[in-house]
Amino acid sequence: MAFHSVIMAGGSGTRFWPLSRRDRPKQLLAITGDRTMLRQTSERVAAVTPPARQWVVCGTRHEAGVRAELPELPAAQILVEPIGRNTAPCIGLAALHLCAVDRDAVACVLPSDAFVPDAAAFGRHMQAAEAGAQAGHITTLGLRPTRAETGYGYIRMAAQQSAHGGLPLHAVDRFVEKPDRATAEKYLADGSYLWNAGIFVFRAAHMLEAIERHLPALHAGLQKLQAVLGTPRYADVLREVYPALPSISIDYGVMEKEPGLYVVPSTFPWSDVGSFAALPEVLPVDAAGNLLRGDVLARDARDCVVDARAGRLCAVVGVQGLIVVDTPDALLVIPKDRAQDVGKLLDVLKERGKDQLL
Amino acid sequence: MAFHSVIMAGGSGTRFWPLSRRDRPKQLLAITGDRTMLRQTSERVAAVTPPARQWVVCGTRHEAGVRAELPELPAAQILVEPIGRNTAPCIGLAALHLCAVDRDAVACVLPSDAFVPDAAAFGRHMQAAEAGAQAGHITTLGLRPTRAETGYGYIRMAAQQSAHGGLPLHAVDRFVEKPDRATAEKYLADGSYLWNAGIFVFRAAHMLEAIERHLPALHAGLQKLQAVLGTPRYADVLREVYPALPSISIDYGVMEKEPGLYVVPSTFPWSDVGSFAALPEVLPVDAAGNLLRGDVLARDARDCVVDARAGRLCAVVGVQGLIVVDTPDALLVIPKDRAQDVGKLLDVLKERGKDQLL
Repeated sequence: MAFHSVIMAGGSGTRFWPLSRRDRPKQLLAITGDRTMLRQTSERVAAVTPPARQWVVCGTRHEAGVRAELPELPAAQILVEPIGRNTAPCIGLAALHLCAVDRDAVACVLPSDAFVPDAAAFGRHMQAAEAGAQAGHITTLGLRPTRAETGYGYIRMAAQQSAHGGLPLHAVDRFVEKPDRATAEKYLADGSYLWNAGIFVFRAAHMLEAIERHLPALHAGLQKLQAVLGTPRYADVLREVYPALPSISIDYGVMEKEPGLYVVPSTFPWSDVGSFAALPEVLPVDAAGNLLRGDVLARDARDCVVDARAGRLCAVVGVQGLIVVDTPDALLVIPKDRAQDVGKLLDVLKERGKDQLL
Repeated sequence: MAFHSVIMAGGSGTRFWPLSRRDRPKQLLAITGDRTMLRQTSERVAAVTPPARQWVVCGTRHEAGVRAELPELPAAQILVEPIGRNTAPCIGLAALHLCAVDRDAVACVLPSDAFVPDAAAFGRHMQAAEAGAQAGHITTLGLRPTRAETGYGYIRMAAQQSAHGGLPLHAVDRFVEKPDRATAEKYLADGSYLWNAGIFVFRAAHMLEAIERHLPALHAGLQKLQAVLGTPRYADVLREVYPALPSISIDYGVMEKEPGLYVVPSTFPWSDVGSFAALPEVLPVDAAGNLLRGDVLARDARDCVVDARAGRLCAVVGVQGLIVVDTPDALLVIPKDRAQDVGKLLDVLKERGKDQLL
């Protein structure tokens, strides 16, 4: 019943362009400090799962970067998707490999690119969730909302079922999709809604059974892979099977349908750092609310995010709520309230044939 | 009675930082097109004064740049000030040299860094002003105001005195300093006030006499120079005498006191291009009012000035009235209505020891 972690590193992180690029997505960037998001995630889960029991699922384009970032992980535990198919296939693939290693493995899966500064608190909640998984329940961490966030999905918790290490485990009433503003306000006031941070803990075999129940097409594909696992044919079959798997999230494909889920209400600071605009929420800012990195000269600037680490001085004067990101070959200027639109720029760059900047 | 021009190229142009630097001030930059302001000025005055009769006054720091820009000018006609002492000493120095070459020389002096696209109209007005100067009057061009500008000085014209080539010459009633907003509105409505563009035409000997009358200390300094003009001692005496000259403008030192001035009311397009914010007033903008140069990707941007000619893509999204200027070693982001403050940044850079960026 060893505890493993599965770090999902398949994201493209386009909302951090021009820092992020096709070959250097958010999880491979040091967005929140001097270590990459992936490295920080690996070090955080090391409290419950040492590198020998850490797995990473990533795309082919990022395999080399992931291996370079996490050289202490066993090479076979970097699982490479030929193409991204959302989280259900990703988790199914990891569960398949885990079961092959240890039929009784318990796994936590989590995104590679969230910001969680309190590793100790994170570890305690993980252990509580592991207890839930050992008891036979797919268990998720749900973050106590601190604001009426419309960018996250929510989990409604029901009655408390048990406890572990002083932390309660509740039954999950239901998963709900990203709400509108008014609904988010209600969720915040209600107290029984938690943010869905995409962190799940389960027995690997249980997850495969749940996939068989709710996503038979995915299960069928995974069975083809299982037949060749550990053989020279694996790579070829993976390349053949994987692109045909249904592209669906684990939330929609499994969690919303599976009975008996548990959730650990969690209070540690957490952010998915969805864009440059989220950085000042998780990192120290100056007296004027600015987050300034690199060689910045700010005058009468307020609530700005300036990342000038490309070796060039960046002078910002008299601006408010502005994001300025400088890199050696591209520069971005956008208001914080448009930060979610950064990804759309990539379509324009594509149209203009600027592939080298993607 | 040959007609010469004297291009005053002593400015430092700090309001165009980071494009402009100590060694590359505004007049040595291609701010308004593909030729430097200095080069454009020289080509414009060539209609009335060929290069053989063009003079430039500049600082030591810019001598090499000026010579490189205007190789066709006689080398001796680049007059180098050891230190900038405002326009009265500059014009006095030029008048001294002109008189030595031709006691009857008529000169037009003008700034090196104004934008005047209609060279033909400029030439016609210059010829009218020359006629005024030949008739014994220091004559200035006064631009018909097109808006209630508070950044320029004004010239109030009195009765028409004569005409030349269909252009009237008026007596000058008085020179007035930069007005406040309400006063500028009155000037605009009044119709007898013209912008002072710093363009003066006069007999060189007349100017020296006027300096003797109104600025005796300057005249005394010029006499010391006159005594060594054309001798090996000139350079040493210039270095000794020039820094001690009174630092005063020709407007304040001479024009406001000298009787019998003429002005040619002028209607050709003219701008001193005082800052990045002035560029969209003189150059074509796109449908959204943006002036975009270099590799710019603009989305939902309005009334912006973006200069991205440093080989890097500059993406501006959802911003309005913003100036973004990218150079290889420094980047500026500032609202248009703060454009006048760019120069103040240089003080901060000095304090921070960033001399290489000045």
